[in-house]
Amino acid sequence: MEKNIKLLVSDIDGVWTDGSYYYNTNGDSFRKFNTKDSFGVALSKLVNLPILIISGEDNEMVRSRMTKLKIENYKLGVSNKLKVLIDHCAKLKIDLSEVAYLGDDMNDYNMLNKVGFFVCPSDAYLRVKNKADIILETPGGQGAFREFVENILNSKGLLDQAYELYINN
Amino acid sequence: MEKNIKLLVSDIDGVWTDGSYYYNTNGDSFRKFNTKDSFGVALSKLVNLPILIISGEDNEMVRSRMTKLKIENYKLGVSNKLKVLIDHCAKLKIDLSEVAYLGDDMNDYNMLNKVGFFVCPSDAYLRVKNKADIILETPGGQGAFREFVENILNSKGLLDQAYELYINN
Amino acid sequence: MEKNIKLLVSDIDGVWTDGSYYYNTNGDSFRKFNTKDSFGVALSKLVNLPILIISGEDNEMVRSRMTKLKIENYKLGVSNKLKVLIDHCAKLKIDLSEVAYLGDDMNDYNMLNKVGFFVCPSDAYLRVKNKADIILETPGGQGAFREFVENILNSKGLLDQAYELYINN
Amino acid sequence: MEKNIKLLVSDIDGVWTDGSYYYNTNGDSFRKFNTKDSFGVALSKLVNLPILIISGEDNEMVRSRMTKLKIENYKLGVSNKLKVLIDHCAKLKIDLSEVAYLGDDMNDYNMLNKVGFFVCPSDAYLRVKNKADIILETPGGQGAFREFVENILNSKGLLDQAYELYINN
Repeated sequence: MEKNIKLLVSDIDGVWTDGSYYYNTNGDSFRKFNTKDSFGVALSKLVNLPILIISGEDNEMVRSRMTKLKIENYKLGVSNKLKVLIDHCAKLKIDLSEVAYLGDDMNDYNMLNKVGFFVCPSDAYLRVKNKADIILETPGGQGAFREFVENILNSKGLLDQAYELYINN
Repeated sequence: MEKNIKLLVSDIDGVWTDGSYYYNTNGDSFRKFNTKDSFGVALSKLVNLPILIISGEDNEMVRSRMTKLKIENYKLGVSNKLKVLIDHCAKLKIDLSEVAYLGDDMNDYNMLNKVGFFVCPSDAYLRVKNKADIILETPGGQGAFREFVENILNSKGLLDQAYELYINN
Repeated sequence: MEKNIKLLVSDIDGVWTDGSYYYNTNGDSFRKFNTKDSFGVALSKLVNLPILIISGEDNEMVRSRMTKLKIENYKLGVSNKLKVLIDHCAKLKIDLSEVAYLGDDMNDYNMLNKVGFFVCPSDAYLRVKNKADIILETPGGQGAFREFVENILNSKGLLDQAYELYINN
Repeated sequence: MEKNIKLLVSDIDGVWTDGSYYYNTNGDSFRKFNTKDSFGVALSKLVNLPILIISGEDNEMVRSRMTKLKIENYKLGVSNKLKVLIDHCAKLKIDLSEVAYLGDDMNDYNMLNKVGFFVCPSDAYLRVKNKADIILETPGGQGAFREFVENILNSKGLLDQAYELYINN
């Protein structure tokens, strides 16, 4: 159940972005993020709910974004996402059933039926969308991570309190 | 009332932009603005209605945009927006009730019920939208600031005159 | 009438682009164009219909685009667009009534009722849209210039012929 | 017929992108791709269906994208696309009727009625769309190439198998 969630895990491409890759003459060089997702990070910190980012890609753009948002736990360039998650859960001494996962495509497919709660953006790939526990109203790159966090906090009855803390911070 | 407004105040991210942050290998490095908002600046100048920009972020991209549009009063990297606004109003010897404010998200929340007139873009965050005095037809980054200025000038009966000045300038 | 048009004139911002200005730490530094408009340029060349670009802005990005598309006649950084157009018409020995103009906002307003045919993108500013001779189906930055050229060539009965020339070129 | 297809051929601009060209002060310098299309490449490799990219443009951005996706066969800066395709088919000892082609505009027009199967994105140019064998649901730049590959693999009865290989890879 959502209210038992103890860890928020999220993919990057197609979730924090709309899947766009901007290339210039030096190669793959730009990513577009959205400031709305920074509220998701702020909220989870205010209620002490840890975040883990797992991405198949590894690049400076994602690292910069993680640094800016002061996210400490992120694993980039991961080929086996499930293994990374299992290891992280062992470290935190929590069960996979206590994990909420936000992913959008076939490289997140192995997480389905493994984590406690699988969430996807509104424009996720069909085969993922069909099996997700919840389909968000927001597409990737427009604040899907924020809606994901709000959704979990709301189930835990912590959302209004978190925003009150945010406003009076 | 709108026709008593003596100062236009605006947030940047999510208002002058759609909330996008473009990262390259050097970090947070690009912002996308829209030329439509430059008409808002031009109109307010033609009728001598002062502008104040307040943003929680501080970066070269916003400074460049302010310089290009010849906006002199802007405060960046602000954590307590309300305090900055109160100080500015004291300097201009106007009351908070004579301020129209354009904001889109929870970091603008404390302005609600404080300023005379709170306006938000069509895609503002729900908790802000629910309390705003007016919801614009334009989303952030597509000319919301222009619509905001036109709205106030229209209430003051100055809009047609301002455009006539613009055309014959 | 459209079939008498001897010169195609176009604005840039909001017409060849969606009005976006991308700023990086060095200031105003990017513009997004669309390859669809390159077909408009190709078509007008194939039927020997001259093009003139007039923009209030002057920057390297527009110059680069003009060079890439081999457009020779462009005037950038223009404050009085009508004067520039009148001079150009005198040089070509044509009348303003033989000019088709594509513009989207109040800095194009003075062209209305002056040129033979005023056209605007589907997302042009309302006061311009209300007075335009034709509103295109395409918004700025998504091929509005191409639709503009096709519209004129179609009225002249030259469109199919131009595409046949293009295909067999 | 689709199930006889032995080669997948694709244009780039307007297909892998939405037709956008980003210019900075150094000229034409950015292209926006979408990670969804990388799944199309992965799927075709898993079932050993070869890919050929043919583009009228030649630039570093496309070369970088090809390198990242490990696509070996691409011809850039091509003026006569049909000739290039005929030569490639001769090399592979396959017939044009065994080629599926994905294109969106008039520079792909000569492929119509020549290749076995002509496919276009949902936002392709009208004269191309009217003659295409299949119009995809996806517009250019949002995963059209992926839908193209899935469509062919589905006709061949290979799609589910390819995704199973992908997941268990």
